[in-house]
Amino acid sequence: MSTASESSAPDTVRSTPRSPGHIRLTSHSAGFGAPQISWGAATAAERGPVIATTTDRAHRNVIGTHSGSYSVYRALAVAAGALSRDHRADLTNTSPTDVIGPHRQWADPNAIVSLDPWGATVAESFPELLASGYDIRPTIAVTKAHVILPEIAEAISRGRLTPDGEFLLSTGAALVTKAAVEPVWWLPGVAARFGCSETDLRRTLFEETGGMYPELVTRSDLEVFLPPIGGQTIYIFGDPQDLSNPAVELTARVHDECNGSDVFGSDICTCRPYLTHAIEECIQGAQRGGVGLVAYSRKEGRALGEVTKFLVYNARKRQVGGDTADQYFARTECVAGVQDMRFQELMPDVLHWLGITRIHRLVSMSNMKYDAITGSGIEVGERVDIPDELVPEDARVEIDAKMAAGYFTSGAVPTTDDLRQVKGRGLSG
Amino acid sequence: MSTASESSAPDTVRSTPRSPGHIRLTSHSAGFGAPQISWGAATAAERGPVIATTTDRAHRNVIGTHSGSYSVYRALAVAAGALSRDHRADLTNTSPTDVIGPHRQWADPNAIVSLDPWGATVAESFPELLASGYDIRPTIAVTKAHVILPEIAEAISRGRLTPDGEFLLSTGAALVTKAAVEPVWWLPGVAARFGCSETDLRRTLFEETGGMYPELVTRSDLEVFLPPIGGQTIYIFGDPQDLSNPAVELTARVHDECNGSDVFGSDICTCRPYLTHAIEECIQGAQRGGVGLVAYSRKEGRALGEVTKFLVYNARKRQVGGDTADQYFARTECVAGVQDMRFQELMPDVLHWLGITRIHRLVSMSNMKYDAITGSGIEVGERVDIPDELVPEDARVEIDAKMAAGYFTSGAVPTTDDLRQVKGRGLSG
Repeated sequence: MSTASESSAPDTVRSTPRSPGHIRLTSHSAGFGAPQISWGAATAAERGPVIATTTDRAHRNVIGTHSGSYSVYRALAVAAGALSRDHRADLTNTSPTDVIGPHRQWADPNAIVSLDPWGATVAESFPELLASGYDIRPTIAVTKAHVILPEIAEAISRGRLTPDGEFLLSTGAALVTKAAVEPVWWLPGVAARFGCSETDLRRTLFEETGGMYPELVTRSDLEVFLPPIGGQTIYIFGDPQDLSNPAVELTARVHDECNGSDVFGSDICTCRPYLTHAIEECIQGAQRGGVGLVAYSRKEGRALGEVTKFLVYNARKRQVGGDTADQYFARTECVAGVQDMRFQELMPDVLHWLGITRIHRLVSMSNMKYDAITGSGIEVGERVDIPDELVPEDARVEIDAKMAAGYFTSGAVPTTDDLRQVKGRGLSG
Repeated sequence: MSTASESSAPDTVRSTPRSPGHIRLTSHSAGFGAPQISWGAATAAERGPVIATTTDRAHRNVIGTHSGSYSVYRALAVAAGALSRDHRADLTNTSPTDVIGPHRQWADPNAIVSLDPWGATVAESFPELLASGYDIRPTIAVTKAHVILPEIAEAISRGRLTPDGEFLLSTGAALVTKAAVEPVWWLPGVAARFGCSETDLRRTLFEETGGMYPELVTRSDLEVFLPPIGGQTIYIFGDPQDLSNPAVELTARVHDECNGSDVFGSDICTCRPYLTHAIEECIQGAQRGGVGLVAYSRKEGRALGEVTKFLVYNARKRQVGGDTADQYFARTECVAGVQDMRFQELMPDVLHWLGITRIHRLVSMSNMKYDAITGSGIEVGERVDIPDELVPEDARVEIDAKMAAGYFTSGAVPTTDDLRQVKGRGLSG
């Protein structure tokens, strides 16, 4: 934990590279033999590894463990006798397909607070510690893929996209580099992002989850937390090295998960149509010498989860007067207490990990995403809204409510009176 | 916790309806004023409500809190000052659009152990407790939707599907009833499914997550755990009431999340093609007087998470000899220690919640899913494999390896020699 004075000045949190002056509670097994983490240090060696193993507790230097919420399944596997608790991952041949960084942002403790920039290269970064028995695991994995989307096939057949054999094949497959990123939270920095003290953050995380990880409150010397939540996946169209070059045109969308639309094509929102439009824009961008990026965050239902999302759908469709755009946010707030829980404050971290300083074309209308990105020091050029013909009829309620609330649009902003007229389908339709 | 003798006989775990004889640790704030849960009781009133509120700790009768892993975002919202910790959900108009159950399976403590069958109807089930101030929240939400998938539009244009105005509209939209289901684990029953003692399950869940929820080990009187993991979503094509009628043809797929294919169309596996084929089968089934079901479980990358999944992709593509089907499972096991962590043992619960006793057409080739479903007492008629033309070229490695390992196929099972010949693309392609 930072010193008291730092905690109370959340905008200028600094890492504590060498002499932390922490209280180490000797009642815990960890703390001796555990390498120190100096968040934001300039090199991997100075920063130190993130060790979340459950096999040798004395080596642990974080709260929580790997794989986000899948740590629960790993525990089940051990309980069921399917997995040895001492299993060590054989990382042969698993290293990234593409070099990402290091970028200067990695050495700024305030630029990245919710992922481990060195998480993709643990084998290269900590060979001696690994050789001497420390169980250091990747929190990021980088691979390559061919992605085939029916919407891209249709764009080809309609002549909007042309296969080039390099970024887009005649089969309709787009070539991507992709990375999965686990959450790794440096608590002093996360607290700073949300304008609260680290102490309050720790206590609230503990209390409001019903008592998850007492170490959050008892181990203030452990500054890093691997929360049991979903992470992010990034899809890069073109050369990943170009992402950090502000002279190369970057088309980017930051997309929050919506299973109902992204996978099943529900017509109540614009999520998948906007996502596939962004992929089309990314491919076009790569083809004209630029690079494209989609960063996909696991934040189902505005991070309220799908049960709350469906409850809100019912409340919207059944309210007196029907599902009108002027009541769109009110219904979420009645059920959930907030309009949105996605907290875009942490989202730009992945952009800084990639070394991005300028997004030429941001394929998003969200003012919250825009504010978070520009507020973190990344320039944004043009904003690309969803083409009107891609908005499903029942999703006009959502998109109009959002535009009236501050979302970007290249067209007219709906008035309060307009919002009362925009009405979605009922539940019987 | 069950009595010692019950714990040691995991196949015949019984609920403890009236006199639990639990040790209640008075050092904890909960336990007084908290309604008791008698898992598997015949009525909601006898079963008692699941109370996971963080607002009044004395009312809590479970470990953990609501919304799975999104409880962490809720805690962040409180820390950031965006959400009052005392917010009570206004559940006006949120109740299910369709009546599900009660079914006789709800009164069998062994039939359902990982969800709350009464979780969709808390307002109707516990009106007096709600009125007297208990914060009881739904763990299931049921709504209606129109889903529009490009693959279904293509099936219409190719004449495989014909809009009927009831199940499938001329716009290409299919009408569904859908439900989101949060995990609610009755620990004695979960332990029984995995053949371990409840004590071992509790300790392992605690230790192997790096110390999540000490109440797992200190509060043996609390039998119910809401784990911070993703849940399930079910999509019903046709009348939900028909699901429990074995005389009505049921077409069903139980699908495990694969973001890379389900959303982005990666060609390394068959996930989305099989899913959209199942939806086509479900619509056809509904049109001929049957009912269709897709149960979608949040178990990314065989519940290993996406970082591990991508590490395995690299290891497969780079190994000596290339990405051959005979090494398919070995590479996962080297990295993860197991071939699979999805544990289909809990999956059938959602089928029992829906009252299903017979699946006429199971759109899945997985022997693990089949064994779990039939082992739980549900009859399965025909098994429907993925049409060969829907298997992406690079996904032959996966599907052939799986068929050789016991997955159902209506065709020939590949031999060991065949598997050596089936080879996927390298990383440079």
